[in-house]
Amino acid sequence: MAQDVARPSLSDALTERVLELIRSGGLRPGDRLPSARELSERFAVTTPTLREALRRLEATGAVQMRHGSGIYVGADLERVVIPNPNFRELQSDQLLQLLDARLLIEPPVAAMAARRADPSDLATLRAVLDQAGCHLDGADAELDKANMSFHRATAKAAGNAVLGEVIDSLLSVHAAEQRAILRIFDDRARDHDEHRAILGAIEAGDAGRAEELMRVHLLDVKSVIEARLT
Amino acid sequence: MAQDVARPSLSDALTERVLELIRSGGLRPGDRLPSARELSERFAVTTPTLREALRRLEATGAVQMRHGSGIYVGADLERVVIPNPNFRELQSDQLLQLLDARLLIEPPVAAMAARRADPSDLATLRAVLDQAGCHLDGADAELDKANMSFHRATAKAAGNAVLGEVIDSLLSVHAAEQRAILRIFDDRARDHDEHRAILGAIEAGDAGRAEELMRVHLLDVKSVIEARLT
Repeated sequence: MAQDVARPSLSDALTERVLELIRSGGLRPGDRLPSARELSERFAVTTPTLREALRRLEATGAVQMRHGSGIYVGADLERVVIPNPNFRELQSDQLLQLLDARLLIEPPVAAMAARRADPSDLATLRAVLDQAGCHLDGADAELDKANMSFHRATAKAAGNAVLGEVIDSLLSVHAAEQRAILRIFDDRARDHDEHRAILGAIEAGDAGRAEELMRVHLLDVKSVIEARLT
Repeated sequence: MAQDVARPSLSDALTERVLELIRSGGLRPGDRLPSARELSERFAVTTPTLREALRRLEATGAVQMRHGSGIYVGADLERVVIPNPNFRELQSDQLLQLLDARLLIEPPVAAMAARRADPSDLATLRAVLDQAGCHLDGADAELDKANMSFHRATAKAAGNAVLGEVIDSLLSVHAAEQRAILRIFDDRARDHDEHRAILGAIEAGDAGRAEELMRVHLLDVKSVIEARLT
């Protein structure tokens, strides 16, 4: 039975063939793949076997199966780094390590953004903060989303996709716990003001100031969370 | 057909139930799960359906299926960030962005290692470099492995698991392309000397020097790769 379940070759090979089909066809995220029927015929496998391979690719964002619509190339196929899709609960020590990781990475990334942001990046950052401003007295979920978008948009403005993926991964994973704590104890208006100040430094092209303001902002977030954990 | 393949609920739910079984049982990486027969009976699903869920978890390191032996909790289950398992070919611009990401992250991590490394971390770092020293005139694969181990061990000595996962993910993905280029054009002895110098700074607890030496080392690697790409 264990041997039966372990048979690695077919499933591995099939996953690889689907990826190869995407690459050789020059398909990009959002492009549609052949139907499940066509794929299972092409690879001469049963539908359950094909589904196994597709599920495996879906779990890591390489393909997307849309109910009633078909199979598409996933948004994460070309990423270097992804958040662990099996991650569920962040322990306290992991949450603090995660904040320390953000503290090490995000301030110099804000400095890069100040050096490199183009007008379209700046427009995005402004739009994200305007959005957050609309939710300051509103629903938590919307405000959280807008605040996380600010950090992602800053990473994007820095112009390094790999660093963007790292920051996106860190933000994705600690969302729930961090949100729960910040929702109760953090000062929404202060957070928003800090984001505005970081944007101001990026707009001014002041790398040193953008770096320092991002550091102070994340230290504020950390101190709120640390106080609740200890 | 598309609807059939898309049915998300059963596969998602089953994946979740396997993860829940691991967590509620307090199982850790390396621990053994019940057999496939027991699991499919417990969850009242067919073996192909169970296998689909297990493959999905295996692709991201949450479980490991050992041929002829059984199903175990995978080493990556508790990680925050993982390398994209579907990633195959790094484009030139991605390789340079990846090196820039390492340049931003690894020098301050080397400084953390200089501040925090304990005797056991130092022993590991020395052993890794001794190992690399033995392969300077030998097989590429062994030397590469030892060199990457040095960067991973430095991250571990820094004491932040999340940063360790980020660095491990970056090292995992660009291994092949970087190796191919470095194998032909890089100076093995110089690399080794640079690693030795970084270790010396970590042993001396000199954070500033460890940071600077790691930066210079990665800039050397980048300049070799950049020269071949452009």
